[in-house]
Amino acid sequence: MSYTAPVKDMLFAIEHLARIDQVAQIPGFEDAGLETAAAVLEECAKFNEGVVAPLNVEGDKNPSAWKDGQVTTTPGFKEAYRQFAEGGWQGLQHPTDFGGQGLPKTIGAACGEMINSANLSFALCPLLTDGAIEALLTAGSDALKATYLEKLISGEWTGTMNLTEPQAGSDLSLVRTKAEPQPDGTYKIFGTKIFITYGEHDMADNIVHLVLARVVGAPEGVKGISLFVVPKFMVGADGSLGARNDVHCVSIEHKLGIKASPTAVLQFGDHGGAIGYLVGEENRGLEYMFIMMNAARYGVGVQGIAVAERAYQQAVQYARDRVQSRPVDGSVAGAAAIIHHPDVRRMLMTMRAYTEGCRAMASVAAAAYDAAHHHPDAQVRSDNAAFYEFMVPLVKGYSTEMSQEVTSLGVQVHGGMGFIEETGAAQHYRDSKILTIYEGTTAIQANDLVGRKTSRDGGQMAKAIAAQIEKTEGELTASGTAAALAVAQRLAAARAAFLEVVDFVAGNTKAQPNAVFAGSVPYLMLTGNLVAGWQMGRALLVAQAKAAAGEDLAFMQAKVATARFYAEHILVKASGLRDAIVHGGESACALPLEAF
Amino acid sequence: MSYTAPVKDMLFAIEHLARIDQVAQIPGFEDAGLETAAAVLEECAKFNEGVVAPLNVEGDKNPSAWKDGQVTTTPGFKEAYRQFAEGGWQGLQHPTDFGGQGLPKTIGAACGEMINSANLSFALCPLLTDGAIEALLTAGSDALKATYLEKLISGEWTGTMNLTEPQAGSDLSLVRTKAEPQPDGTYKIFGTKIFITYGEHDMADNIVHLVLARVVGAPEGVKGISLFVVPKFMVGADGSLGARNDVHCVSIEHKLGIKASPTAVLQFGDHGGAIGYLVGEENRGLEYMFIMMNAARYGVGVQGIAVAERAYQQAVQYARDRVQSRPVDGSVAGAAAIIHHPDVRRMLMTMRAYTEGCRAMASVAAAAYDAAHHHPDAQVRSDNAAFYEFMVPLVKGYSTEMSQEVTSLGVQVHGGMGFIEETGAAQHYRDSKILTIYEGTTAIQANDLVGRKTSRDGGQMAKAIAAQIEKTEGELTASGTAAALAVAQRLAAARAAFLEVVDFVAGNTKAQPNAVFAGSVPYLMLTGNLVAGWQMGRALLVAQAKAAAGEDLAFMQAKVATARFYAEHILVKASGLRDAIVHGGESACALPLEAF
Repeated sequence: MSYTAPVKDMLFAIEHLARIDQVAQIPGFEDAGLETAAAVLEECAKFNEGVVAPLNVEGDKNPSAWKDGQVTTTPGFKEAYRQFAEGGWQGLQHPTDFGGQGLPKTIGAACGEMINSANLSFALCPLLTDGAIEALLTAGSDALKATYLEKLISGEWTGTMNLTEPQAGSDLSLVRTKAEPQPDGTYKIFGTKIFITYGEHDMADNIVHLVLARVVGAPEGVKGISLFVVPKFMVGADGSLGARNDVHCVSIEHKLGIKASPTAVLQFGDHGGAIGYLVGEENRGLEYMFIMMNAARYGVGVQGIAVAERAYQQAVQYARDRVQSRPVDGSVAGAAAIIHHPDVRRMLMTMRAYTEGCRAMASVAAAAYDAAHHHPDAQVRSDNAAFYEFMVPLVKGYSTEMSQEVTSLGVQVHGGMGFIEETGAAQHYRDSKILTIYEGTTAIQANDLVGRKTSRDGGQMAKAIAAQIEKTEGELTASGTAAALAVAQRLAAARAAFLEVVDFVAGNTKAQPNAVFAGSVPYLMLTGNLVAGWQMGRALLVAQAKAAAGEDLAFMQAKVATARFYAEHILVKASGLRDAIVHGGESACALPLEAF
Repeated sequence: MSYTAPVKDMLFAIEHLARIDQVAQIPGFEDAGLETAAAVLEECAKFNEGVVAPLNVEGDKNPSAWKDGQVTTTPGFKEAYRQFAEGGWQGLQHPTDFGGQGLPKTIGAACGEMINSANLSFALCPLLTDGAIEALLTAGSDALKATYLEKLISGEWTGTMNLTEPQAGSDLSLVRTKAEPQPDGTYKIFGTKIFITYGEHDMADNIVHLVLARVVGAPEGVKGISLFVVPKFMVGADGSLGARNDVHCVSIEHKLGIKASPTAVLQFGDHGGAIGYLVGEENRGLEYMFIMMNAARYGVGVQGIAVAERAYQQAVQYARDRVQSRPVDGSVAGAAAIIHHPDVRRMLMTMRAYTEGCRAMASVAAAAYDAAHHHPDAQVRSDNAAFYEFMVPLVKGYSTEMSQEVTSLGVQVHGGMGFIEETGAAQHYRDSKILTIYEGTTAIQANDLVGRKTSRDGGQMAKAIAAQIEKTEGELTASGTAAALAVAQRLAAARAAFLEVVDFVAGNTKAQPNAVFAGSVPYLMLTGNLVAGWQMGRALLVAQAKAAAGEDLAFMQAKVATARFYAEHILVKASGLRDAIVHGGESACALPLEAF
């Protein structure tokens, strides 16, 4: 099943919702306007459609394999990765100082979606490398930067994030991996890390592991965790590769999905100690790791959008081809393609609306990231940073949860054929299941949304967003079309539900923590639903104006129809979520533990 | 991961909701009271926990395999099936005239849940055999009954349903398999059938295929379809097995789940014609097939409940064992078992409440089936038949859709471990995905609910159920406890939403078929949600009375807490569904086909 990058839809979001014209006014991004975006996206589409997408099914059938400590990736991956690196795709958003292209995330996020739609398993390697680059850029010494950044940004080497241990998953305070300081300023690292994505593979010459460990004598808990660089091969002063470091892949996992992506168990220090280099200061590792995590969380959210898009394309194709039953409205005399059936239409529209809504949300968040990091005005930076921080758990949590509903519908559209592995619809369903788990489960995102993003500022940012949504409602109402009014009405209802919940959350996190946190995931779902719906409303305003002007009529009318569908079928879930959150906290925790 | 049958919960539903005391007043069921139910369920639990459940993981790792037309089932299946047959489990609900035990479905359904929880793949073989038995009982000639029924009911032979062909899935009017009448009264059958569950295997001496085919010269469409018995081995007058019939398994499918269940492609008549025996009259095949289908649809609904229960048990176990993070309420000083965390509690409660609600609904439907088929009073029979018919799409559609949400939560509770196949949580997620597809997709169930079950009688049965629900609300309100009032309030709101939808559906099916059918699946979900919630309300009334009397306090309090959770977290979805159905029909079908 081929993949066609939705370049036009991405550019619509980039131009009209993320407002790339404003991003291009930021110093350093002068050349990164719409034209550049279009050119980069076209090139990126060509590469991913032609080189990466065809390997997706192969990766599922012929996963990465481990033998004697070596991991062999799916046939074709190594060559595709070489082309990826040579094309400069790893460096897209990274600083030109180290060989990157310095493009804004507003453009980079769309490219990220493409590679993930093309091949979720393949795309994970660059995604993790991005995280390692971010961590080194933020906290690495000049020496570390000089040694590693260019090679990572060029794609010559790849990066990993080593957080999880058997007893330490969501709870990193339980990390036990040990770092012993050496006289030469390096550390010897000992311990076991699990679930390490691309922790071992054959696609690059070196692997740069970013590892959380506890320096001997450090405080217990999260305040005693430091971050280290542990290269697979030692690196000489001239950048040449030296001896093998004492980090070894002892096995990889047999997983439900993303089978081509090797998930490694790494053993550090079984042969005398792995040599590690401290990143930043001792005991601040978790702080630095959160930089990697935040980049990766956004990236995983984009993975959700990406796999949803791929599942949607495949379902549409099947629905056009498969002939079965007469339409209920008698519009076709005999059996018709199932895309004529209202329930199939509802399923496809649900898939489409979710995907477009989350793409729009992610695109707007990316623009805020660019402003937060690069805008010359400090106030603008900090406003955008606060907005972006609020968006990260939504992009990660909501887009990945929706991807599971969308890929499930993708199987359902295929009927019995969907259950047959050769059809390929089931792969998306299996692949997507990891997205709500890694880089922080949905519950972890929801904790973040409740704690750091809502309660901490008494709900201020949440309410500021609600105020912006109200403004969009006003514009929709003023425009007066039936579609705009339908969306405005559902937005207003969902926003009212949201505000009730924000007051409940902000007001009760300390007094009734169980009740509030029992509603944390529903709160995340309500908020993601609303914010994506808001962007659909904004898209509708642009599209109906363009349609009225006769510009690209079919495309613009489809935008309007999809926005209306989103409002009438998805936004309407808000009131039920509100009720469950505000009134259901007690019953969620009422059953005594022994009664389960 | 072991399985413990929830015998106590099943008996609660059987005694207090399905009211087995009333079933036991029906002539022929005098001995099938609560005591019998308890004894049968205990025995059934022992068998399924001990013999069938341990084969579940093995079946996934080591699926049925095809070679040269033969299918070898998972090691252990053959012996377990022998014990199943010897235990008389196949005959549980079937007539004593043919060697069955003649027990009511009220008891049989609970046994069906157990074997499916134990092993969905294994249980499919008896499930399909039940369908074949039903069809022969209803429409088979005395000769066919004499030849096949005892052997099927004893479990010596197994049965299949041959409906689907490559071009004919949901749309059986497209069936092309051909039947040529022979001078001796038999038919020669030619054609290809796909997706035939246990179409070939090594667990029984003979396989009795029930096959839809078109007699040469029959009318086009569904009115020209007849039903045939096609045995794998010919059967002599004395019941002995003779020559191999011309039906051959040419391959089995490579599937997402239920891997141990062989899904066969069967080729009829490639070597001169398979000998078939007409069941009932020519051209009435679809009618008879619906008898099998209705039995099987109910059975698949029970599969949904069963896999949800198994996933719940596994998730609870993991949540008790896995230690991670401090509870937000400070109730434990250090890291605690994750069952202490509110979001994990919410997930487990969601799994539990859905499962209990659907079990209660299925149990009540089973009692209606018993009365519909066996009550001496014709009016009672027809009232119960109408109620049962309304329940079938709900039991099938709602219980299977919920099973996918529940098994997905089951993976989520496990975090990263859930994505690792060895953990076993992912198997339930994969297995459950077929349940919304086979024996009629959720959309097919929803069409049935809209067309035959709601529009045809102008919404009368739907409103009669609403009136019963209102009565339960009154009892809840009268009882005056906080839990009862909370449930009564949500039931009333959901019922109001339901009634709006019923009026919309009954009033517009002809005038606006697209709008109504676009809302058909949401209508099914709303109705299933409400009816299961109603049963939770009834359960609460019984349980709080018993708790007040000090009877089995912990169990009864858990019932009350679960019912309240169901109302506050699940019933509250009703209003959003109502809005989508009543107002979203147009937007669901607004996008032109070419715009997808």
